Amino acid sequence: MTGCRIRSLTWFGQLWEYETPKVIVVKNCHLGTIYRLLQLLIIVYFAWYVFVIQKGYQARETGPESAVITKVKGVSMSKAPRGTKKIWDVAEYVKPPEGGSIFTIITRTESTKLQTLGTCPESKSVIDALCVSSEDCKHGEMHVLGHGVQTGHCVSASHGSLKTCEIHAWCPLEDETVTSESLHEFVPSFTILIKNNIHFPQFGFSKSNIEDDNALKNCTYHPIRSPSCPIFTMDFIVKEAGINFTKIAYKGGIIGVIINWNCNLDLHPSKCRPQYSFRRLDLQNNISTGYNYRFAKYYNKNGREARTLIKVYGIRIDVIVHGQAGKFSLIPTIINLATALTSIGVGSVFCDWILLTFMNKNHMYSMRKYDQVKKKLPAL
Amino acid sequence: MTGCRIRSLTWFGQLWEYETPKVIVVKNCHLGTIYRLLQLLIIVYFAWYVFVIQKGYQARETGPESAVITKVKGVSMSKAPRGTKKIWDVAEYVKPPEGGSIFTIITRTESTKLQTLGTCPESKSVIDALCVSSEDCKHGEMHVLGHGVQTGHCVSASHGSLKTCEIHAWCPLEDETVTSESLHEFVPSFTILIKNNIHFPQFGFSKSNIEDDNALKNCTYHPIRSPSCPIFTMDFIVKEAGINFTKIAYKGGIIGVIINWNCNLDLHPSKCRPQYSFRRLDLQNNISTGYNYRFAKYYNKNGREARTLIKVYGIRIDVIVHGQAGKFSLIPTIINLATALTSIGVGSVFCDWILLTFMNKNHMYSMRKYDQVKKKLPAL
Amino acid sequence: MTGCRIRSLTWFGQLWEYETPKVIVVKNCHLGTIYRLLQLLIIVYFAWYVFVIQKGYQARETGPESAVITKVKGVSMSKAPRGTKKIWDVAEYVKPPEGGSIFTIITRTESTKLQTLGTCPESKSVIDALCVSSEDCKHGEMHVLGHGVQTGHCVSASHGSLKTCEIHAWCPLEDETVTSESLHEFVPSFTILIKNNIHFPQFGFSKSNIEDDNALKNCTYHPIRSPSCPIFTMDFIVKEAGINFTKIAYKGGIIGVIINWNCNLDLHPSKCRPQYSFRRLDLQNNISTGYNYRFAKYYNKNGREARTLIKVYGIRIDVIVHGQAGKFSLIPTIINLATALTSIGVGSVFCDWILLTFMNKNHMYSMRKYDQVKKKLPAL
Repeated sequence: MTGCRIRSLTWFGQLWEYETPKVIVVKNCHLGTIYRLLQLLIIVYFAWYVFVIQKGYQARETGPESAVITKVKGVSMSKAPRGTKKIWDVAEYVKPPEGGSIFTIITRTESTKLQTLGTCPESKSVIDALCVSSEDCKHGEMHVLGHGVQTGHCVSASHGSLKTCEIHAWCPLEDETVTSESLHEFVPSFTILIKNNIHFPQFGFSKSNIEDDNALKNCTYHPIRSPSCPIFTMDFIVKEAGINFTKIAYKGGIIGVIINWNCNLDLHPSKCRPQYSFRRLDLQNNISTGYNYRFAKYYNKNGREARTLIKVYGIRIDVIVHGQAGKFSLIPTIINLATALTSIGVGSVFCDWILLTFMNKNHMYSMRKYDQVKKKLPAL
Repeated sequence: MTGCRIRSLTWFGQLWEYETPKVIVVKNCHLGTIYRLLQLLIIVYFAWYVFVIQKGYQARETGPESAVITKVKGVSMSKAPRGTKKIWDVAEYVKPPEGGSIFTIITRTESTKLQTLGTCPESKSVIDALCVSSEDCKHGEMHVLGHGVQTGHCVSASHGSLKTCEIHAWCPLEDETVTSESLHEFVPSFTILIKNNIHFPQFGFSKSNIEDDNALKNCTYHPIRSPSCPIFTMDFIVKEAGINFTKIAYKGGIIGVIINWNCNLDLHPSKCRPQYSFRRLDLQNNISTGYNYRFAKYYNKNGREARTLIKVYGIRIDVIVHGQAGKFSLIPTIINLATALTSIGVGSVFCDWILLTFMNKNHMYSMRKYDQVKKKLPAL
Repeated sequence: MTGCRIRSLTWFGQLWEYETPKVIVVKNCHLGTIYRLLQLLIIVYFAWYVFVIQKGYQARETGPESAVITKVKGVSMSKAPRGTKKIWDVAEYVKPPEGGSIFTIITRTESTKLQTLGTCPESKSVIDALCVSSEDCKHGEMHVLGHGVQTGHCVSASHGSLKTCEIHAWCPLEDETVTSESLHEFVPSFTILIKNNIHFPQFGFSKSNIEDDNALKNCTYHPIRSPSCPIFTMDFIVKEAGINFTKIAYKGGIIGVIINWNCNLDLHPSKCRPQYSFRRLDLQNNISTGYNYRFAKYYNKNGREARTLIKVYGIRIDVIVHGQAGKFSLIPTIINLATALTSIGVGSVFCDWILLTFMNKNHMYSMRKYDQVKKKLPAL
């Protein structure tokens, strides 16, 4: 007879309007309890999501201005097949050398020494260049995959009986006399210092990833033991990115060092610290895996220009900086509060709909809900 | 007497509140129909815009992490005025050579060969450097647009009777002995392979613009015939950007290759494909059009440092990656639903306002609307 | 007796619903006035913030596509300790030379000339390399901070009685024979031309920071006198960034030139002009301040490769482009209007709460508010 008297807060707007709260006599207490719990769940979830997770009370800024300086340390040695040793220091293996956010650590080279401009037979690997007589070669023509411009002669290719079209090119060609050098032996012990300074212009907040200069001298980064040390060994980076070092050193590849700043400026600035993560960025498991490019070193050889063409395989490091900052602000707080309340209303309606549709004892519930309707309809 | 009985949904909130829906007897059926249609239009438009166009039911992420590798193929030949031919391969004409997202394909050079440090007369084009006697030249002074630091002497400029101040500089000066070489002949047939790998950290979704390695070998990009082939000919890029090739090859310029990823992650990942577009990025139709820069190659000439100064005109390619991904998420769905409903309410009010203001038969309509007002006012 | 009759607009929603506005007889006129003023304040503030400051009636786009071309002009001279003068022109001191958005102007170099691959004693500064006998040196070992790979011999270091491990390296080492050259004298008068072209794809709007080519020839940027001239002197940039030029020229550093486009596309395009600002981006006030890197120039010395190792200190300029554009659009106008109205409602409730809680004369006020409650409750 005496049920649980609860006031329906079905639509939050009502509370704000100071209108008559509907009073519902629910004979079955369980129904009322379930209803209350469901609503509470929705309210708590929204409040928690919008204000705790999404920090709805904060003004936000993403995409900070960022400056990255990198510095690699370490020396390696390569042994050419003929036994000559070459020492590779930073000026040799870091390309480009400027210490920016994208740079390559060379792990292997294929050098073609002392090329000069002249004529020589096209490489046999260029299928279109194979010829029988000079009629197969057109003067002045160029194959996109070839190495030079045809002279119109058909000449014997080196090492074999095949003939190819003669070309104007940097001779000898790369395929013929290439020398491979690998410096992967010492690369894992190389260290990379990454200095990163960010600035959020909206909040006028700047921060660097180096907090204590003295601690910098002998540290290496470790996610647990020294998470604020921005010196990374190549070994660590490659392992964290889940890569087999030998393979990437041979074929080359790109590793992203992602620096993520997630700053809550309502706390002390020292709490705003970057998170580092590492991920392979180039394609994997297919033919075109790897990273390589060619460049040349130029010499003056008896008054003529000569060059050493170097095909470089290396580990390219892309330092990618992400960031967002939030700080309390009245306006987003009110706007989010309003949006959250409206959202809760939509959620509550859903709640009601379930009760009205699926519950057994919904007769009494819905009757009360529409009490006013009946009273007003006759007035029309 | 028997009009069209329609329930007013003027304010959606009302429905959610399960309050008495106002019942309006509209004698003129047309009015009611127009009213309904107007509301329907607003509701449909909003629902369509917010949920279909804006995909309001999805959590969104923009600005993916992106790695770009580029590789140019092709060989060209230039003829210097003296008849010497020079072969330009990738190592020669791609600067910087690292295969990053911004690189230049050289189309023309102006070389000043074998400069050494010494003294020579300033160029006549530097107006401030013209002199009559040594009194016009100040030792140690430098003109911003000049080529060196003045020695304090006034000497005869080459080729003519004019005198200019002598300067410490890299001599001979660029203006005097420049050799122009153009390699534009074969540039249109060059191909650029663009590998692009993106990653949306929030969704943990990675994708590459290369889907099938085997298809890569002999394809070139065409928007209809092979839209997934990431190999572009220079000819195609220049034409798509709406540029006259001869002009850009002579003066240089910057072309943006814009890769746009617009991924709906509710669909199969294979549906997420990049769109390519091409646009000229440097200034057009004015004096400062074009793109050029100077660099030097160094030689050791009899123990002294010598250099070849090269002014390079080229087509700079900027690969710009844009992207956004969306995936269904409950929270934005509810929040957008609530916002949309509120917006629809505002729209409906606008609807009502039109009806109440401009319609002929609005007497009955507004009377019913304010029915309750009259009944309650006396209660005060 | 006759108070101020004012209609309560407590919840804006009510007005939209055309329901009975509550009529409150406030005996004390001051209370009503305060209440009205408070509400007006909230409404005005929100309307002003959302629609004037935040431009809630506009569709917005951030992160425009941007292309930057830079061009440095000027010549400087350095004096090596031995008295030899070196002229530095653009091809010498701008690295990389391509004229991109990040480049370094060299201000000081430390050169180690004519290094060749060979063996020499390790530097004394590498503490681990100090030795007494050859037993202290392990063949094939490498120190991360060392200059080469150990041969296993312990030899006398140059200049002193100390012994260090012999190493395979580029000899002589950097520490021994370095030549310092400083070109800071003329650097402040260098000029940097920054061409920046942006494009907002959503609005199809492009703009350049160069409006009038003719004005470009003889201008230098000044925030008041010539704010549209994109030619900056180094002196100006360094001063605006609040830096002591002598210090940054000696140790190196990074300066950000921030170009901010804030375009209201509802106005004439000529109103959309970039703002320039300047800020030091590298770390300050600590040991690791500064910016330097090493690169090498290669020579062919009697058939063997020789190099000049150059440690470069310089001012790195990072041109950072920010931008946002807004244009009127119906949808965000309606959505923001709805959100603003909801927010105003929340604000008004706060208003009511203050009145109901803290005001002396709130008896009458709250009685009226809950008038309907009493009348409806008995009906249950």
